[in-house]
Amino acid sequence: MTMKAIRDLLPSAKAIERELIELRRKLHRNPELSFEESETAAAVAELLRGLGLEVRSGIGGHGVVAELTGSRPGPRIALRADMDALPIQEETDLPYASERPGKMHACGHDAHTAILYGAAKLLSERKDQLVGSVRFIFQSAEEINAGAQVMIEQGVLEGVDEIFGLHNLPTLPAGKAATRYGALMGSVDRFELNLTGKGGHGAIPDQCVDPVVAASAIILSLQSAVSREISPFDPVVVTVGSIHGGASYNVIPERVEMTGTVRTFSRSVQEGMPSRLERLINQTAEAYRCKAELRYTQQVPVLVNHDDNVRHVEDAIDLILGLENRVEANPVLAGEDFSVYLQHVPGCFFWLGSGPATGAEQAYGLHHPKFAINEDCLSVGAALLAAISIHRLGV
Amino acid sequence: MTMKAIRDLLPSAKAIERELIELRRKLHRNPELSFEESETAAAVAELLRGLGLEVRSGIGGHGVVAELTGSRPGPRIALRADMDALPIQEETDLPYASERPGKMHACGHDAHTAILYGAAKLLSERKDQLVGSVRFIFQSAEEINAGAQVMIEQGVLEGVDEIFGLHNLPTLPAGKAATRYGALMGSVDRFELNLTGKGGHGAIPDQCVDPVVAASAIILSLQSAVSREISPFDPVVVTVGSIHGGASYNVIPERVEMTGTVRTFSRSVQEGMPSRLERLINQTAEAYRCKAELRYTQQVPVLVNHDDNVRHVEDAIDLILGLENRVEANPVLAGEDFSVYLQHVPGCFFWLGSGPATGAEQAYGLHHPKFAINEDCLSVGAALLAAISIHRLGV
Amino acid sequence: MTMKAIRDLLPSAKAIERELIELRRKLHRNPELSFEESETAAAVAELLRGLGLEVRSGIGGHGVVAELTGSRPGPRIALRADMDALPIQEETDLPYASERPGKMHACGHDAHTAILYGAAKLLSERKDQLVGSVRFIFQSAEEINAGAQVMIEQGVLEGVDEIFGLHNLPTLPAGKAATRYGALMGSVDRFELNLTGKGGHGAIPDQCVDPVVAASAIILSLQSAVSREISPFDPVVVTVGSIHGGASYNVIPERVEMTGTVRTFSRSVQEGMPSRLERLINQTAEAYRCKAELRYTQQVPVLVNHDDNVRHVEDAIDLILGLENRVEANPVLAGEDFSVYLQHVPGCFFWLGSGPATGAEQAYGLHHPKFAINEDCLSVGAALLAAISIHRLGV
Amino acid sequence: MTMKAIRDLLPSAKAIERELIELRRKLHRNPELSFEESETAAAVAELLRGLGLEVRSGIGGHGVVAELTGSRPGPRIALRADMDALPIQEETDLPYASERPGKMHACGHDAHTAILYGAAKLLSERKDQLVGSVRFIFQSAEEINAGAQVMIEQGVLEGVDEIFGLHNLPTLPAGKAATRYGALMGSVDRFELNLTGKGGHGAIPDQCVDPVVAASAIILSLQSAVSREISPFDPVVVTVGSIHGGASYNVIPERVEMTGTVRTFSRSVQEGMPSRLERLINQTAEAYRCKAELRYTQQVPVLVNHDDNVRHVEDAIDLILGLENRVEANPVLAGEDFSVYLQHVPGCFFWLGSGPATGAEQAYGLHHPKFAINEDCLSVGAALLAAISIHRLGV
Repeated sequence: MTMKAIRDLLPSAKAIERELIELRRKLHRNPELSFEESETAAAVAELLRGLGLEVRSGIGGHGVVAELTGSRPGPRIALRADMDALPIQEETDLPYASERPGKMHACGHDAHTAILYGAAKLLSERKDQLVGSVRFIFQSAEEINAGAQVMIEQGVLEGVDEIFGLHNLPTLPAGKAATRYGALMGSVDRFELNLTGKGGHGAIPDQCVDPVVAASAIILSLQSAVSREISPFDPVVVTVGSIHGGASYNVIPERVEMTGTVRTFSRSVQEGMPSRLERLINQTAEAYRCKAELRYTQQVPVLVNHDDNVRHVEDAIDLILGLENRVEANPVLAGEDFSVYLQHVPGCFFWLGSGPATGAEQAYGLHHPKFAINEDCLSVGAALLAAISIHRLGV
Repeated sequence: MTMKAIRDLLPSAKAIERELIELRRKLHRNPELSFEESETAAAVAELLRGLGLEVRSGIGGHGVVAELTGSRPGPRIALRADMDALPIQEETDLPYASERPGKMHACGHDAHTAILYGAAKLLSERKDQLVGSVRFIFQSAEEINAGAQVMIEQGVLEGVDEIFGLHNLPTLPAGKAATRYGALMGSVDRFELNLTGKGGHGAIPDQCVDPVVAASAIILSLQSAVSREISPFDPVVVTVGSIHGGASYNVIPERVEMTGTVRTFSRSVQEGMPSRLERLINQTAEAYRCKAELRYTQQVPVLVNHDDNVRHVEDAIDLILGLENRVEANPVLAGEDFSVYLQHVPGCFFWLGSGPATGAEQAYGLHHPKFAINEDCLSVGAALLAAISIHRLGV
Repeated sequence: MTMKAIRDLLPSAKAIERELIELRRKLHRNPELSFEESETAAAVAELLRGLGLEVRSGIGGHGVVAELTGSRPGPRIALRADMDALPIQEETDLPYASERPGKMHACGHDAHTAILYGAAKLLSERKDQLVGSVRFIFQSAEEINAGAQVMIEQGVLEGVDEIFGLHNLPTLPAGKAATRYGALMGSVDRFELNLTGKGGHGAIPDQCVDPVVAASAIILSLQSAVSREISPFDPVVVTVGSIHGGASYNVIPERVEMTGTVRTFSRSVQEGMPSRLERLINQTAEAYRCKAELRYTQQVPVLVNHDDNVRHVEDAIDLILGLENRVEANPVLAGEDFSVYLQHVPGCFFWLGSGPATGAEQAYGLHHPKFAINEDCLSVGAALLAAISIHRLGV
Repeated sequence: MTMKAIRDLLPSAKAIERELIELRRKLHRNPELSFEESETAAAVAELLRGLGLEVRSGIGGHGVVAELTGSRPGPRIALRADMDALPIQEETDLPYASERPGKMHACGHDAHTAILYGAAKLLSERKDQLVGSVRFIFQSAEEINAGAQVMIEQGVLEGVDEIFGLHNLPTLPAGKAATRYGALMGSVDRFELNLTGKGGHGAIPDQCVDPVVAASAIILSLQSAVSREISPFDPVVVTVGSIHGGASYNVIPERVEMTGTVRTFSRSVQEGMPSRLERLINQTAEAYRCKAELRYTQQVPVLVNHDDNVRHVEDAIDLILGLENRVEANPVLAGEDFSVYLQHVPGCFFWLGSGPATGAEQAYGLHHPKFAINEDCLSVGAALLAAISIHRLGV
């Protein structure tokens, strides 16, 4: 009975594909940056109300939460999508390209939003098949690793037993999906490092303290954090992404400012990194007579899927797409604040293919100005999220 | 006879001090940047014509050249002042502070201009004592190391046998002067270094080529150019004055851009530096898989005084100020494009005390927003330049 | 039938434990270095002949190979042990400690040898249960990563269908065993780097080329090979293990000599490392005007277990020790030349617990002067190897 | 009268040249290392006693001191030579090459000793011309910067008013001499740096602390001490002369040991160097988790000639060799423990040409296994030292 109900989902999703495409294109034309998703949220809330759901808005920024209660009491699962766009100038020539200069849905959150609406619609039509309830979470500000945390603080996980989410992947053809047991995505730390020496005439270094040379020694020292201090079996990255100091060729600057990121694949490695960087940076700065100010922020934990929930997702994929379209995901150190939800409740995150049927490996990547998605993924994604829900809650 | 004539110069200069101060303050209020000294030049030209001199304008930018011919034929000496101001916002509260935002005579070229005018006036009144002639050179664009070269290209040194010039020094009390045999100031080279790697996601360094790490290795390698490759008895400085790369904490940037300066104290060391830097930079860049583009420009040669001319200047100082007010100058690696003239004709450059009678060593330095000069130096400078001329050309 | 036969092996092994312990202690007292294992080999050969096996000696150094032919034709599997000791001075106070100064069985190859002899004895008594044959390989020179290669060149794998081997692990209690699917141990590359500058007086660096500074820049550059050039999901280590240059505090040496190792966990990463190091080393050396001579040798490939054979080993462990004593091995970058055999035939390598029942995690590690093994592991190891054989070949 | 007496000295010296050459060759055949100069000292003492001088032996090691008292009371000057050889294997094919393996007079102290004996002989024959007295100091252990200090501690400078000394210079033709006002030779500091990490398996860096990488970072940091912290007009050298760590390519060593030298040309720079190195070394070591032990010894101060005494030496050179054979010496950072005497009494050190008449600039330098001297310098040196004495003390 449940099996059949699940197998019906993809045709049902195809039947509403046009609506999902229209919604996604409307969002794509009108991208909104992190914590500025007011129009997107309003549109989403209206649609959800149209489904007869109980809708709350303004949760954790512009987050929208809707509740679907099944025919009988049972567990509650949550499905989550993110809604924010990026400060990137779109360079596609799509007819529905961004109409807002310098802003673009270059990570496909427009698609995620449309997919979750689609799942809500599919499930609303099948509420009598559900024992338990489904919470739909449309989140603000994933791109700056901030939205999940504030939504949780405002109670969005209360009463939730399990949570599921997806991200589109343009290098995987639409019609395929991928997940992985255990750690799937990395932790994200951010640091800002200001290095202060003593500026002065470039011809009189002995009366100055040169922060440019000190910064160089620090950056080289950070390489050894990776190469010598961490097990080679523990993936870790330390990147200094920006360095800025000085305005003139013949003046030793007073300060050099750097920012960077640390990525790890385990909680214990992540926990050890701040003191490691502090040591390398502060001691090297002192060696070179500079003062280092390090602001280190742990933004996002490692995203670790829970085994039971991965199995549920795998089953759903197999039923909707067939075993041959299920792929084992490679682990990556890119971060995703879905991991914050997983610190509170079990769940699973998975990749939804959004690339062309052939040549997906050549597709423009996430965050690229020419990023585009194969809209075939919209109905597939909606069907998968609905399938996961029915598989979990179905009678 | 000459001795007495020279000893009279300081009182004569004192007698016109008010005029010099007024001129200097007018220039100070209205600073003009390098190659933009049109108003300054016009004022100077008018004053020089008022002395009955033959004046040419617009030489090498806004340069002004005036000729004083003595009573009988003889050698021709040149006296040179510079006229340009700096892109600095004045922070003094002087009543005659700069009225032009972001521009300031923070190096005292206003004083140099007034002093050379004063010398021209003193000498004009004594032209019958001169066997030979004096050329007064008011130069553009010393601050960017460009004015001397273009004036010479336009013939300003034709027929000149010797040249003299001065720079005020706020850490030496007014009433004192300092010079030095041989090398006095350093050569000035400028370099721009663009380092190109391959940008990308900060969590995926293996798909990028990180120019930040490469830049760090290059900067450290440049330290060894000084510490290991050059004789410790050959003063040399290599400074990276600015470094800029990256806009985001979690993106490996495509490029890092640096600028810097090289200072030396001998022609042979200066000549060897470009290939030295090229080797260190290009090879290190290749080690780190980056592409380095180095633009290296030799701007100003070492300023080397000629022994005979130093002796003349020392004599003039002794006669005007007394032996006790003559100081042996410390060599410095700061540059001065007077050195370009000295590549063509013999001569001497010297420091004119412009500091307070006491506490000069605490005075704000050249190029400081609070830089100020003790105006007592104006008449002293004018008398010294006139004395040098009469000492050299006097009957 | 086979099950029962296998379950009998441990009691049978216990019954000959005294003999195994005596053999192991005799070898322990008389350690022989790599390619010098003549006495060990002679003792082993005599024992094997005593079992009625066909024995060949002097294969690949002092290697010994014995053949056990079962009752009926079938596949041939090989079991391998290594026999060489290390140039280490033993610091235990065991009654059977090494009697040869500066030589010690600090890696437990004495135990491996005794275990394989034990397995040969157990299997010889059960040859009628075998369909196929078992080849016992006692190898020279594992410690210098040379023995497996020369034995293979002399045909030791001819006719072999599968191969199995073990290594004792003092941090795992005796009575347990561990293995892993896929890559288990790292590749081992070795490099020697001679850096030539130009020696001379320590007070006159400008007439020298300092290889000490160049070596420092090279060593720091190698850190970035790990931190920036390789995927964080590909374990890799670059270690400079020794650096030697100079004999006097006040002389710049002509040369600095370094040796080091590179470890990887995949063939493709291993293949890319030599050119990577060449680039970093040669270009950095040229930046610093030195000449680098790099001798890079790939000694041992990654040890990759074959899935089917891992399953066999796991079954044997479960039957002999119980599921609760089977552990999933952690991957390590230490190398083992068993991996060379696995490049030619499928097989599996596994860890045999050789630590105390409690506190094993505190035990002295392999290669430590106080390394010791729990001799309970001897009978366990013999039973396991015999079990693997019977499980594979049993009727 | 004095003039004539001085002009006679060179012919008189020529007359005893054979004896000086024989003495020098005898010493050359039998070199003795620092603080081992017993045979040399015995030979010198016997010769001096032969001149009728009062001789004391065993001062400050094997130092020999002889006193020549003039005809009337007056000042006392000291003349000093050093006697020790070097641990170098001679590679000349001279008939009188070193007969002691691994030992060589590669710095010409054999010549210095013969020269000072020659001067003693010349002056002994002229004692009636001396108003005052001359002390002849034959010193131990100059090569290890230790002899002067211990001789002074034993009173060798008591009653001495001025001191003079010379060193042969193979790149200056015999027959010439060179000196310089003020600083002539550098200070010599020595340091030993032991860096302790935590040794272990080369494949498991995360369980070790790698002192090789830390040493590299420290060595690079020391370059910036020279390039950024000291005025380019203050000559300074920091050389790491030796680095040793590790015995195996695949083991991270526990320790790296380095030695090095610091040379400066002014007391104030010398004074600041220990804390500078401590900072750079200790902080960098801590950055890399290592423990640094720095032993820093100031061995020899800057050698600063006193103006009056330089003038005396210049006069003597002019009278003996002619003005055209007097050269202004280049400053060098090589050290000479004659500087220790100059901290107690005024004096002058000078270079004595010991090279061939032509091609001296190609001659093998001091400390080279093929170093050789032009023995014409022996009589010249003896005459010069005698001339300095008579010029200073003559009636």
